[in-house]
Amino acid sequence: MDKPISKERCGKVYLALLHHPVLNKNGDVVITALTNLDVHDIARAAKTYGVYKFYVVTPSESQHRLLNRILAHWTSGFGGEYNPTRKAALELVSAAYSLDEVKKKIAYGSGKRPLVVLTSAKKRETTISFGSIGKRLAEGEDLLLVFGTGWGLAKEVHEKAHFLLEPICGVGEYNHLSVRSAVSIILDRLFGR
Amino acid sequence: MDKPISKERCGKVYLALLHHPVLNKNGDVVITALTNLDVHDIARAAKTYGVYKFYVVTPSESQHRLLNRILAHWTSGFGGEYNPTRKAALELVSAAYSLDEVKKKIAYGSGKRPLVVLTSAKKRETTISFGSIGKRLAEGEDLLLVFGTGWGLAKEVHEKAHFLLEPICGVGEYNHLSVRSAVSIILDRLFGR
Repeated sequence: MDKPISKERCGKVYLALLHHPVLNKNGDVVITALTNLDVHDIARAAKTYGVYKFYVVTPSESQHRLLNRILAHWTSGFGGEYNPTRKAALELVSAAYSLDEVKKKIAYGSGKRPLVVLTSAKKRETTISFGSIGKRLAEGEDLLLVFGTGWGLAKEVHEKAHFLLEPICGVGEYNHLSVRSAVSIILDRLFGR
Repeated sequence: MDKPISKERCGKVYLALLHHPVLNKNGDVVITALTNLDVHDIARAAKTYGVYKFYVVTPSESQHRLLNRILAHWTSGFGGEYNPTRKAALELVSAAYSLDEVKKKIAYGSGKRPLVVLTSAKKRETTISFGSIGKRLAEGEDLLLVFGTGWGLAKEVHEKAHFLLEPICGVGEYNHLSVRSAVSIILDRLFGR
Protein backbone atom coordinates (compact mmCIF):
# COMPACT_ATOMS: atom_id res chain seq x y z
CA MET A 1 0.00 0.00 0.00
CA ASP A 2 3.01 2.35 0.11
CA LYS A 3 3.20 2.23 -3.66
CA PRO A 4 0.63 4.12 -5.73
CA ILE A 5 -2.32 1.84 -6.45
CA SER A 6 -2.66 2.84 -10.07
CA LYS A 7 -1.29 5.47 -12.38
CA GLU A 8 -4.59 7.34 -12.01
CA ARG A 9 -4.11 7.77 -8.28
CA CYS A 10 -0.81 8.90 -6.82
CA GLY A 11 -2.11 10.45 -3.57
CA LYS A 12 -3.20 8.45 -0.55
CA VAL A 13 -6.80 8.24 0.62
CA TYR A 14 -7.81 8.42 4.29
CA LEU A 15 -11.25 8.14 5.90
CA ALA A 16 -12.47 9.65 9.17
CA LEU A 17 -15.77 8.71 10.81
CA LEU A 18 -16.71 11.39 13.35
CA HIS A 19 -18.68 10.66 16.52
CA HIS A 20 -18.10 14.25 17.64
CA PRO A 21 -18.85 17.05 16.92
CA VAL A 22 -22.02 15.81 15.25
CA LEU A 23 -25.69 16.74 15.51
CA ASN A 24 -28.58 14.90 17.08
CA LYS A 25 -32.15 15.01 15.79
CA ASN A 26 -32.76 18.39 17.47
CA GLY A 27 -29.61 19.97 16.06
CA ASP A 28 -27.61 19.85 19.32
CA VAL A 29 -23.91 19.00 19.16
CA VAL A 30 -23.38 15.56 20.76
CA ILE A 31 -21.05 12.57 21.00
CA THR A 32 -22.62 9.54 19.34
CA ALA A 33 -21.90 5.96 20.37
CA LEU A 34 -19.69 3.64 18.37
CA THR A 35 -21.58 1.22 16.11
CA ASN A 36 -19.76 -2.09 15.66
CA LEU A 37 -21.03 -2.63 12.11
CA ASP A 38 -19.83 0.84 11.04
CA VAL A 39 -16.28 -0.19 11.89
CA HIS A 40 -16.53 -3.53 10.07
CA ASP A 41 -18.42 -2.36 6.98
CA ILE A 42 -16.36 0.77 6.43
CA ALA A 43 -13.07 -1.08 7.02
CA ARG A 44 -14.09 -3.75 4.48
CA ALA A 45 -15.04 -1.08 1.90
CA ALA A 46 -11.80 0.80 2.68
CA LYS A 47 -9.76 -2.36 2.05
CA THR A 48 -11.66 -3.04 -1.18
CA TYR A 49 -10.96 0.41 -2.59
CA GLY A 50 -7.36 0.85 -1.44
CA VAL A 51 -7.86 3.33 1.40
CA TYR A 52 -4.64 3.88 3.33
CA LYS A 53 -6.11 4.39 6.81
CA PHE A 54 -9.56 4.67 8.43
CA TYR A 55 -9.81 6.77 11.61
CA VAL A 56 -12.71 6.33 14.05
CA VAL A 57 -12.93 9.66 15.87
CA THR A 58 -14.38 10.12 19.34
CA PRO A 59 -13.23 12.11 22.38
CA SER A 60 -14.61 9.43 24.75
CA GLU A 61 -11.99 7.34 26.57
CA SER A 62 -14.43 4.49 27.18
CA GLN A 63 -15.32 4.40 23.49
CA HIS A 64 -11.60 4.22 22.66
CA ARG A 65 -11.32 1.22 24.99
CA LEU A 66 -14.31 -0.43 23.29
CA LEU A 67 -12.92 0.21 19.81
CA ASN A 68 -9.47 -1.06 20.72
CA ARG A 69 -11.00 -4.21 22.20
CA ILE A 70 -12.91 -4.86 18.97
CA LEU A 71 -9.80 -4.22 16.87
CA ALA A 72 -7.62 -6.45 19.07
CA HIS A 73 -10.09 -9.33 18.72
CA TRP A 74 -9.98 -9.15 14.93
CA THR A 75 -6.34 -8.26 14.35
CA SER A 76 -4.34 -10.09 17.05
CA GLY A 77 -6.99 -12.25 18.79
CA PHE A 78 -9.10 -15.23 17.77
CA GLY A 79 -11.09 -13.25 15.18
CA GLY A 80 -8.01 -12.81 13.02
CA GLU A 81 -7.38 -16.54 12.90
CA TYR A 82 -11.03 -17.34 12.30
CA ASN A 83 -11.46 -14.75 9.54
CA PRO A 84 -8.22 -13.45 7.99
CA THR A 85 -10.06 -11.21 5.49
CA ARG A 86 -11.68 -9.37 8.40
CA LYS A 87 -8.25 -8.99 9.98
CA ALA A 88 -6.91 -7.47 6.74
CA ALA A 89 -9.72 -4.90 6.76
CA LEU A 90 -9.62 -4.00 10.47
CA GLU A 91 -5.85 -3.47 10.35
CA LEU A 92 -6.65 -0.22 8.52
CA VAL A 93 -8.56 1.15 11.53
CA SER A 94 -7.18 3.51 14.18
CA ALA A 95 -8.80 5.45 16.99
CA ALA A 96 -8.40 9.24 17.20
CA TYR A 97 -9.69 11.88 19.60
CA SER A 98 -10.45 14.66 17.12
CA LEU A 99 -10.36 15.62 13.46
CA ASP A 100 -7.40 17.90 14.25
CA GLU A 101 -5.48 14.90 15.59
CA VAL A 102 -6.26 12.95 12.38
CA LYS A 103 -5.01 15.82 10.22
CA LYS A 104 -1.80 16.09 12.29
CA LYS A 105 -1.15 12.34 12.12
CA ILE A 106 -1.55 12.31 8.34
CA ALA A 107 0.70 15.34 7.87
CA TYR A 108 3.28 13.82 10.23
CA GLY A 109 3.23 10.50 8.38
CA SER A 110 3.35 11.76 4.81
CA GLY A 111 4.97 15.16 5.22
CA LYS A 112 2.08 17.02 3.60
CA ARG A 113 -1.41 18.17 4.53
CA PRO A 114 -4.29 16.25 2.95
CA LEU A 115 -7.18 17.81 1.07
CA VAL A 116 -10.02 17.66 3.64
CA VAL A 117 -13.37 16.86 2.01
CA LEU A 118 -16.57 16.54 4.03
CA THR A 119 -19.54 14.45 2.97
CA SER A 120 -23.20 15.31 3.51
CA ALA A 121 -26.58 14.27 2.17
CA LYS A 122 -27.55 17.96 1.90
CA LYS A 123 -26.79 20.19 -1.05
CA ARG A 124 -24.69 23.20 -0.05
CA GLU A 125 -22.29 25.63 -1.68
CA THR A 126 -18.52 25.05 -2.20
CA THR A 127 -19.03 21.45 -3.27
CA ILE A 128 -16.37 19.51 -5.13
CA SER A 129 -17.28 16.91 -7.75
CA PHE A 130 -16.15 13.26 -7.80
CA GLY A 131 -14.24 14.03 -11.00
CA SER A 132 -12.29 16.93 -9.45
CA ILE A 133 -11.23 14.74 -6.51
CA GLY A 134 -9.93 12.08 -8.89
CA LYS A 135 -7.93 14.75 -10.74
CA ARG A 136 -6.34 16.11 -7.56
CA LEU A 137 -5.42 12.59 -6.41
CA ALA A 138 -3.82 11.95 -9.80
CA GLU A 139 -1.79 15.10 -9.29
CA GLY A 140 -0.41 13.61 -6.07
CA GLU A 141 -2.57 15.25 -3.40
CA ASP A 142 -3.63 13.15 -0.42
CA LEU A 143 -7.34 13.02 0.41
CA LEU A 144 -9.10 12.86 3.77
CA LEU A 145 -12.79 12.05 3.38
CA VAL A 146 -14.82 12.93 6.50
CA PHE A 147 -18.11 11.22 7.36
CA GLY A 148 -20.51 12.06 10.18
CA THR A 149 -22.69 9.92 12.41
CA GLY A 150 -25.98 10.89 14.08
CA TRP A 151 -27.77 13.66 12.14
CA GLY A 152 -24.59 14.88 10.43
CA LEU A 153 -21.42 16.91 10.97
CA ALA A 154 -21.60 20.02 13.18
CA LYS A 155 -20.97 23.51 11.74
CA GLU A 156 -17.49 23.75 13.31
CA VAL A 157 -16.33 20.77 11.21
CA HIS A 158 -17.35 22.59 8.04
CA GLU A 159 -15.04 25.46 9.00
CA LYS A 160 -12.06 23.05 9.14
CA ALA A 161 -12.51 21.52 5.69
CA HIS A 162 -11.50 22.56 2.17
CA PHE A 163 -14.56 21.27 0.37
CA LEU A 164 -17.86 19.49 0.66
CA LEU A 165 -18.32 16.52 -1.68
CA GLU A 166 -21.30 16.67 -4.04
CA PRO A 167 -24.19 14.66 -2.53
CA ILE A 168 -25.14 11.19 -3.77
CA CYS A 169 -28.30 11.39 -5.86
CA GLY A 170 -30.61 8.44 -6.29
CA VAL A 171 -33.72 8.57 -8.43
CA GLY A 172 -35.84 10.96 -6.36
CA GLU A 173 -35.67 13.34 -3.42
CA TYR A 174 -35.11 10.66 -0.74
CA ASN A 175 -31.57 11.07 0.65
CA HIS A 176 -31.37 9.02 3.84
CA LEU A 177 -28.67 6.43 3.22
CA SER A 178 -26.82 4.92 6.18
CA VAL A 179 -23.25 6.14 6.65
CA ARG A 180 -22.16 2.57 5.80
CA SER A 181 -23.92 2.79 2.44
CA ALA A 182 -22.69 6.33 1.77
CA VAL A 183 -19.03 5.43 2.36
CA SER A 184 -19.34 2.38 0.09
CA ILE A 185 -21.00 4.29 -2.74
CA ILE A 186 -18.57 7.23 -2.55
CA LEU A 187 -15.51 4.94 -2.63
CA ASP A 188 -17.01 3.02 -5.56
CA ARG A 189 -17.76 6.24 -7.48
CA LEU A 190 -14.19 7.42 -6.92
CA PHE A 191 -12.25 4.17 -7.35
CA GLY A 192 -14.54 1.34 -8.56
CA ARG A 193 -13.92 -0.43 -11.84
CA MET B 1 -43.92 4.25 -7.67
CA ASP B 2 -46.48 2.70 -10.01
CA LYS B 3 -45.33 5.07 -12.74
CA PRO B 4 -41.99 4.50 -14.44
CA ILE B 5 -39.28 6.37 -12.55
CA SER B 6 -37.53 7.68 -15.63
CA LYS B 7 -37.63 7.10 -19.35
CA GLU B 8 -34.46 5.01 -18.98
CA ARG B 9 -36.20 2.53 -16.72
CA CYS B 10 -39.63 1.18 -17.50
CA GLY B 11 -39.40 -2.14 -15.63
CA LYS B 12 -39.71 -2.46 -11.86
CA VAL B 13 -36.81 -3.43 -9.63
CA TYR B 14 -37.16 -5.88 -6.72
CA LEU B 15 -34.58 -7.04 -4.15
CA ALA B 16 -34.43 -10.33 -2.26
CA LEU B 17 -32.07 -10.95 0.66
CA LEU B 18 -31.77 -14.71 1.22
CA HIS B 19 -31.17 -16.25 4.65
CA HIS B 20 -31.67 -19.70 3.11
CA PRO B 21 -30.35 -21.61 1.21
CA VAL B 22 -26.97 -20.00 1.87
CA LEU B 23 -23.56 -21.36 2.81
CA ASN B 24 -21.66 -21.17 6.06
CA LYS B 25 -17.87 -20.93 6.32
CA ASN B 26 -17.50 -24.70 5.74
CA GLY B 27 -19.73 -24.74 2.66
CA ASP B 28 -22.75 -26.33 4.39
CA VAL B 29 -26.23 -25.11 3.47
CA VAL B 30 -27.70 -23.25 6.48
CA ILE B 31 -30.32 -20.73 7.58
CA THR B 32 -28.65 -17.51 8.74
CA ALA B 33 -30.13 -15.20 11.37
CA LEU B 34 -31.76 -11.88 10.52
CA THR B 35 -29.48 -8.85 10.99
CA ASN B 36 -31.43 -5.74 11.98
CA LEU B 37 -29.05 -3.35 10.19
CA ASP B 38 -29.35 -5.33 6.93
CA VAL B 39 -33.06 -4.59 6.90
CA HIS B 40 -32.60 -0.88 7.66
CA ASP B 41 -29.60 -0.21 5.41
CA ILE B 42 -30.92 -2.11 2.42
CA ALA B 43 -34.42 -0.59 2.79
CA ARG B 44 -32.89 2.91 2.88
CA ALA B 45 -30.76 2.20 -0.21
CA ALA B 46 -33.81 0.65 -1.92
CA LYS B 47 -35.89 3.78 -1.23
CA THR B 48 -33.05 6.01 -2.47
CA TYR B 49 -32.77 4.18 -5.80
CA GLY B 50 -36.47 3.61 -6.49
CA VAL B 51 -36.71 -0.12 -5.75
CA TYR B 52 -40.33 -1.32 -5.83
CA LYS B 53 -40.14 -3.97 -3.10
CA PHE B 54 -37.47 -5.56 -0.87
CA TYR B 55 -38.11 -9.16 0.26
CA VAL B 56 -36.36 -10.61 3.31
CA VAL B 57 -36.38 -14.37 2.72
CA THR B 58 -36.20 -16.97 5.47
CA PRO B 59 -38.10 -20.22 6.09
CA SER B 60 -38.00 -19.67 9.86
CA GLU B 61 -41.33 -18.76 11.49
CA SER B 62 -39.64 -17.16 14.50
CA GLN B 63 -37.51 -15.00 12.19
CA HIS B 64 -40.69 -13.92 10.40
CA ARG B 65 -42.15 -12.88 13.75
CA LEU B 66 -38.99 -10.93 14.57
CA LEU B 67 -38.95 -9.20 11.18
CA ASN B 68 -42.63 -8.31 11.37
CA ARG B 69 -42.13 -6.88 14.86
CA ILE B 70 -39.28 -4.65 13.58
CA LEU B 71 -41.37 -3.56 10.58
CA ALA B 72 -44.43 -2.84 12.72
CA HIS B 73 -42.37 -0.62 15.07
CA TRP B 74 -41.09 1.51 12.17
CA THR B 75 -44.15 1.58 9.95
CA SER B 76 -47.19 1.67 12.25
CA GLY B 77 -45.62 2.05 15.71
CA PHE B 78 -43.68 4.78 17.51
CA GLY B 79 -40.66 4.49 15.19
CA GLY B 80 -42.67 5.78 12.26
CA GLU B 81 -43.71 8.91 14.18
CA TYR B 82 -40.19 9.45 15.51
CA ASN B 83 -38.49 8.97 12.14
CA PRO B 84 -40.79 9.26 9.10
CA THR B 85 -37.92 8.73 6.64
CA ARG B 86 -37.21 5.34 8.20
CA LYS B 87 -40.92 4.52 7.89
CA ALA B 88 -40.80 5.41 4.18
CA ALA B 89 -37.89 3.00 3.66
CA LEU B 90 -39.21 0.11 5.76
CA GLU B 91 -42.60 0.23 4.04
CA LEU B 92 -40.81 -1.38 1.06
CA VAL B 93 -39.93 -4.49 3.09
CA SER B 94 -41.88 -7.77 3.12
CA ALA B 95 -41.12 -11.19 4.57
CA ALA B 96 -41.09 -14.26 2.32
CA TYR B 97 -40.44 -17.96 2.97
CA SER B 98 -38.52 -18.78 -0.21
CA LEU B 99 -37.17 -17.37 -3.46
CA ASP B 100 -39.91 -19.28 -5.29
CA GLU B 101 -42.52 -17.45 -3.22
CA VAL B 102 -40.91 -14.11 -4.12
CA LYS B 103 -40.96 -14.95 -7.83
CA LYS B 104 -44.61 -16.00 -7.63
CA LYS B 105 -45.63 -12.85 -5.75
CA ILE B 106 -43.93 -10.62 -8.31
CA ALA B 107 -45.47 -12.49 -11.25
CA TYR B 108 -48.90 -12.34 -9.58
CA GLY B 109 -48.60 -8.60 -8.92
CA SER B 110 -47.28 -7.47 -12.28
CA GLY B 111 -48.51 -10.24 -14.60
CA LYS B 112 -45.01 -11.12 -15.82
CA ARG B 113 -41.98 -13.00 -14.61
CA PRO B 114 -38.99 -10.89 -13.57
CA LEU B 115 -35.44 -11.36 -14.83
CA VAL B 116 -33.75 -13.10 -11.86
CA VAL B 117 -30.16 -11.92 -11.39
CA LEU B 118 -27.95 -13.24 -8.61
CA THR B 119 -25.08 -11.33 -7.06
CA SER B 120 -21.77 -12.78 -5.90
CA ALA B 121 -18.29 -11.57 -5.05
CA LYS B 122 -16.84 -14.45 -7.09
CA LYS B 123 -16.24 -14.39 -10.81
CA ARG B 124 -18.17 -17.12 -12.64
CA GLU B 125 -19.51 -17.79 -16.10
CA THR B 126 -22.87 -16.57 -17.45
CA THR B 127 -22.47 -13.14 -15.91
CA ILE B 128 -24.52 -10.16 -17.03
CA SER B 129 -23.06 -6.63 -17.06
CA PHE B 130 -24.53 -3.57 -15.34
CA GLY B 131 -25.08 -2.06 -18.78
CA SER B 132 -27.08 -5.04 -20.07
CA ILE B 133 -29.37 -4.92 -17.05
CA GLY B 134 -30.04 -1.23 -17.64
CA LYS B 135 -30.92 -1.99 -21.26
CA ARG B 136 -33.35 -4.78 -20.36
CA LEU B 137 -35.06 -2.56 -17.76
CA ALA B 138 -35.40 0.15 -20.38
CA GLU B 139 -37.09 -2.40 -22.62
CA GLY B 140 -39.69 -2.95 -19.90
CA GLU B 141 -38.44 -6.10 -18.18
CA ASP B 142 -38.79 -6.33 -14.40
CA LEU B 143 -35.65 -7.18 -12.42
CA LEU B 144 -35.24 -9.26 -9.26
CA LEU B 145 -31.76 -8.83 -7.75
CA VAL B 146 -30.91 -11.63 -5.30
CA PHE B 147 -28.36 -11.19 -2.49
CA GLY B 148 -27.04 -13.81 -0.11
CA THR B 149 -26.06 -13.70 3.57
CA GLY B 150 -23.47 -15.88 5.35
CA TRP B 151 -20.80 -17.14 2.93
CA GLY B 152 -23.00 -16.70 -0.16
CA LEU B 153 -25.86 -18.25 -2.10
CA ALA B 154 -26.10 -22.06 -2.28
CA LYS B 155 -25.77 -23.89 -5.61
CA GLU B 156 -29.50 -24.62 -5.87
CA VAL B 157 -30.21 -20.86 -6.03
CA HIS B 158 -27.89 -20.54 -9.03
CA GLU B 159 -30.04 -23.10 -10.85
CA LYS B 160 -33.15 -20.92 -10.37
CA ALA B 161 -31.69 -17.71 -11.81
CA HIS B 162 -31.25 -16.32 -15.31
CA PHE B 163 -27.93 -14.57 -14.76
CA LEU B 164 -25.20 -13.75 -12.31
CA LEU B 165 -24.29 -10.05 -12.09
CA GLU B 166 -20.67 -9.16 -12.82
CA PRO B 167 -18.79 -8.79 -9.51
CA ILE B 168 -17.89 -5.41 -7.99
CA CYS B 169 -14.20 -4.71 -8.50
CA GLY B 170 -12.28 -2.39 -6.25
CA VAL B 171 -8.61 -1.61 -6.77
CA GLY B 172 -7.08 -5.01 -5.94
CA GLU B 173 -8.00 -8.62 -5.28
CA TYR B 174 -9.79 -8.02 -1.95
CA ASN B 175 -13.52 -8.74 -2.45
CA HIS B 176 -15.10 -8.97 0.99
CA LEU B 177 -17.70 -6.22 1.12
CA SER B 178 -20.64 -6.56 3.50
CA VAL B 179 -23.97 -7.35 1.84
CA ARG B 180 -25.12 -3.87 2.97
CA SER B 181 -22.25 -2.26 1.03
CA ALA B 182 -22.72 -4.54 -2.00
CA VAL B 183 -26.44 -3.72 -2.34
CA SER B 184 -25.72 0.01 -2.04
CA ILE B 185 -22.94 -0.03 -4.65
CA ILE B 186 -24.91 -2.18 -7.11
CA LEU B 187 -27.99 0.05 -6.88
CA ASP B 188 -25.79 3.13 -7.33
CA ARG B 189 -24.03 1.65 -10.36
CA LEU B 190 -27.39 0.80 -11.93
CA PHE B 191 -29.42 3.88 -11.00
CA GLY B 192 -27.25 6.57 -9.37
CA ARG B 193 -26.87 9.99 -10.92
